[in-house]
Amino acid sequence: MTPGKGTSTAADPRFFTCAGPFDGAALASAAGAELLDRKDGGVAPQGGYTSIAPLQAAGGTDVSFLDNRRYAPLLDDTRAGLVIVAPAFVARVPSHCAALVTATPYLAWSRVARLFHPRPAAQPGVHPTASIAPTAKVDATAQIGAFVVVGDRAEIGAGSLVDAHTVIGDGVVLGQDCRIGSHVSITHALVGDRVTILPGARIGQDGFGFAVGPAGFESVPQLGRVLLEDDVEIGANSTIDRGSVNDTVIGAGSRLDNLVQIGHNARLGRCCIVVSQAGISGSTVLEDYVTVAAQAGLIGHIRIGTKARIGAQCGVMSDVESGADVIGSPAMPFREFFRNVAVLRKLSKKGSGSAQDDSGKA
Amino acid sequence: MTPGKGTSTAADPRFFTCAGPFDGAALASAAGAELLDRKDGGVAPQGGYTSIAPLQAAGGTDVSFLDNRRYAPLLDDTRAGLVIVAPAFVARVPSHCAALVTATPYLAWSRVARLFHPRPAAQPGVHPTASIAPTAKVDATAQIGAFVVVGDRAEIGAGSLVDAHTVIGDGVVLGQDCRIGSHVSITHALVGDRVTILPGARIGQDGFGFAVGPAGFESVPQLGRVLLEDDVEIGANSTIDRGSVNDTVIGAGSRLDNLVQIGHNARLGRCCIVVSQAGISGSTVLEDYVTVAAQAGLIGHIRIGTKARIGAQCGVMSDVESGADVIGSPAMPFREFFRNVAVLRKLSKKGSGSAQDDSGKA
Amino acid sequence: MTPGKGTSTAADPRFFTCAGPFDGAALASAAGAELLDRKDGGVAPQGGYTSIAPLQAAGGTDVSFLDNRRYAPLLDDTRAGLVIVAPAFVARVPSHCAALVTATPYLAWSRVARLFHPRPAAQPGVHPTASIAPTAKVDATAQIGAFVVVGDRAEIGAGSLVDAHTVIGDGVVLGQDCRIGSHVSITHALVGDRVTILPGARIGQDGFGFAVGPAGFESVPQLGRVLLEDDVEIGANSTIDRGSVNDTVIGAGSRLDNLVQIGHNARLGRCCIVVSQAGISGSTVLEDYVTVAAQAGLIGHIRIGTKARIGAQCGVMSDVESGADVIGSPAMPFREFFRNVAVLRKLSKKGSGSAQDDSGKA
Repeated sequence: MTPGKGTSTAADPRFFTCAGPFDGAALASAAGAELLDRKDGGVAPQGGYTSIAPLQAAGGTDVSFLDNRRYAPLLDDTRAGLVIVAPAFVARVPSHCAALVTATPYLAWSRVARLFHPRPAAQPGVHPTASIAPTAKVDATAQIGAFVVVGDRAEIGAGSLVDAHTVIGDGVVLGQDCRIGSHVSITHALVGDRVTILPGARIGQDGFGFAVGPAGFESVPQLGRVLLEDDVEIGANSTIDRGSVNDTVIGAGSRLDNLVQIGHNARLGRCCIVVSQAGISGSTVLEDYVTVAAQAGLIGHIRIGTKARIGAQCGVMSDVESGADVIGSPAMPFREFFRNVAVLRKLSKKGSGSAQDDSGKA
Repeated sequence: MTPGKGTSTAADPRFFTCAGPFDGAALASAAGAELLDRKDGGVAPQGGYTSIAPLQAAGGTDVSFLDNRRYAPLLDDTRAGLVIVAPAFVARVPSHCAALVTATPYLAWSRVARLFHPRPAAQPGVHPTASIAPTAKVDATAQIGAFVVVGDRAEIGAGSLVDAHTVIGDGVVLGQDCRIGSHVSITHALVGDRVTILPGARIGQDGFGFAVGPAGFESVPQLGRVLLEDDVEIGANSTIDRGSVNDTVIGAGSRLDNLVQIGHNARLGRCCIVVSQAGISGSTVLEDYVTVAAQAGLIGHIRIGTKARIGAQCGVMSDVESGADVIGSPAMPFREFFRNVAVLRKLSKKGSGSAQDDSGKA
Repeated sequence: MTPGKGTSTAADPRFFTCAGPFDGAALASAAGAELLDRKDGGVAPQGGYTSIAPLQAAGGTDVSFLDNRRYAPLLDDTRAGLVIVAPAFVARVPSHCAALVTATPYLAWSRVARLFHPRPAAQPGVHPTASIAPTAKVDATAQIGAFVVVGDRAEIGAGSLVDAHTVIGDGVVLGQDCRIGSHVSITHALVGDRVTILPGARIGQDGFGFAVGPAGFESVPQLGRVLLEDDVEIGANSTIDRGSVNDTVIGAGSRLDNLVQIGHNARLGRCCIVVSQAGISGSTVLEDYVTVAAQAGLIGHIRIGTKARIGAQCGVMSDVESGADVIGSPAMPFREFFRNVAVLRKLSKKGSGSAQDDSGKA
């Protein structure tokens, strides 16, 4: 069996509800974009546009978009009824397509897609298999899934959804309109509003702290908390340890991808981005708008300045200035890193005759 | 307590059932190997061989094997009754051992081990604690474990086993003879036949996609699916995000190890291998038979050609040609990488006097 | 909402019980430290010290500590009543603070913190929602949480705590006084005493082993076990595969952080440390007291000598001698690595004019 063969590839109705159809004007309004009619004078589909689809799969009642110029050839061949594009691509829109033109096509696309496929609202109620402590406070508008555990004195805010098999520990506070995926564990944490946590994330467990005693390692009590501020998103199977004596803090609007590790007492500012498999060691501070790319690692007790960007697989061993772009292990400015790569390549070619003897030994 | 002290180290009957004993001819047949009698003229064990064991622990009724020449000294000292070896090692087989000789000893070993210890069949039935939606279709021959959740309209195929605490989301389709471990979550996915997913894997959650809006990041709806084709295996705690507008696809026969990250819209071809802690970013394409070694990272929107091999910890920032071997960060051909290492070592030794002043600053 | 604003940041009573107050003599005794009175002649707080807090948040009844000289300026400004410091910092202790002086302030802090906030004891009993096989042996003093599954013939020792949603597989043996977090899966494993496993760890699943057959990959049966010796700690969402034919062994007292991968048949000695996101491939051996820093990767079938230290992001492709310090990918001695960095920087600066043309191509 080849699963999915012959079925639609975007917004499969098995998985997504659809709020459409919408006409071009409604979509232009949602997108904050300008609507351009078809160049061939043809009319928009009777009854409106019905859904969204990628350029190569879209039909005449679908909306599609181009954001990455790498995929511009797909625009030439699309059969979409309506495409969202930047002004630079208007000339390339096929004559049978209407267009939504905007300087921010990805944002416009996001809003159009959301209009067609709104996020499901929480269905108020507690699944009969859930285990809720008598002293917990679950808002009547929250949705609690199968086999969820809510501990003593925990609080779940209005409109929040806690999916199947998640454990909310004693005393944890969860704000309003949160979306907590399945199999999540949250302990020793205070969580703001509109926080999203994907399946399998671990929030608030013991940090990695021990002292060397006469008979081996002794665990140092981890007595801080995790604070997830408003609008934070945490990826699947990521791990955020609680603080040892200070708190571990993820600032408002920050987004962490899957399999990210955040050590105890780390503090992220507002709107930081941490891409998958990156790790931030204990007590390190990220100011606001810092980006940490995939598989990068930061040692403990350093400070990364506002809007700094840490490249993929970067190994950061010391403070990074605001606005700096660093990459490499150890971290260095982007320009220096790529200059080193070029210099080494040149030396290596020049010396390849004499160096070849060594080349298999490393 | 030292757990396991003094107990058997392979196929412990606490954990594994045994289908033996088998005689040499049956094992040779299963292995597709040639049976060589003991050089000392001794006879095979009365009643057949009873189990498998590593060279250093095997006794006279055990079957063992040598696949890695690094461990050849263990062959000299083994007390196994029967050993599986390549032709090159026949001369080194002790005289009290019979041998199964084959050009593919590891494959032969695999089949012999499977003969002794077959994979447990699914025990048809639904555990009384499972929560199955009335509209779900669970085949009568499937096995559903404790506290499993199966959502609306989900389908579980014949002979499939879903272990304890796993959540199968609304509309998910699971084929025949699948093995889904405990604590797995699968949403927005179509899964083929004979697919194996180890505990804690996360399949089908939202990809990492957001646009920058006037008030901060705005989540881009993730409206694709995950397609796992036939015979795919996914490791423990790995994460596979669903597509944003296209699908995320894992091609037939591909195998992913533990803690692997697959971004939205990525497409892997047939029989790819992705080793633990590697990450493949969104919209990247792997053609067939690609190998990605441990902790390697691939940026998004690139293409890796058929049979290319990406080395451990490699950082791939651009397309890789079919059949190429690359390593390093940024990725380069194996030969170039090790030549660079050698050149730098030579330069560093030569200049070590003058460079030492800087050596502590990095 | 900014969660936690205005609340205490250490030992929040929502999450931690407090066994205090204690007077200075009791704390000095627990800490194994010398008590120094306030330099200003002031008296200790009436009724004793009540809790612990970080230097910057502590008040007059709190105990705090300085371990990292980076934070010494916080000592100057602290309002703590009692501080734990090394002899070198006694002169810098503010005159209104008493002091506990010791050569090992972090260990002393650990013991004082534990005195105030002891680890909660197991509450004997099985949660009514747990699913315990009739043939399992659960000690009467063990605590079994909600929705826990304990398989056939599994054994749970005295005083052990198994948190909600954890699955203990058939035949697994768990020793005394263990702490197993929520959402853990343990199969094919023997576990010693006082072992701690944090949420979401995966212990004992199939290793990544397959042979190439005529019709694609064939799984090699994984017939070994996982042995976790006494006092081992395993981090959140880490994965430890069972052996294929030998066992996978984690030696007594070893500590693994979050998101660590341990391949099949790997053997760690006593008191090894493996920091987050590091990976150890199959059949590799770590002798005793080895440290593997964050995101390091070790290939399979190598041996790391006693007390060797593997740096962060290091890529280890061959054996490492006892006591060696290595870093880089491929691994090399620390001195060589930083000398290489310095040499390359120097060359790159010298040649930056001619090399700039290449710098954007990599």
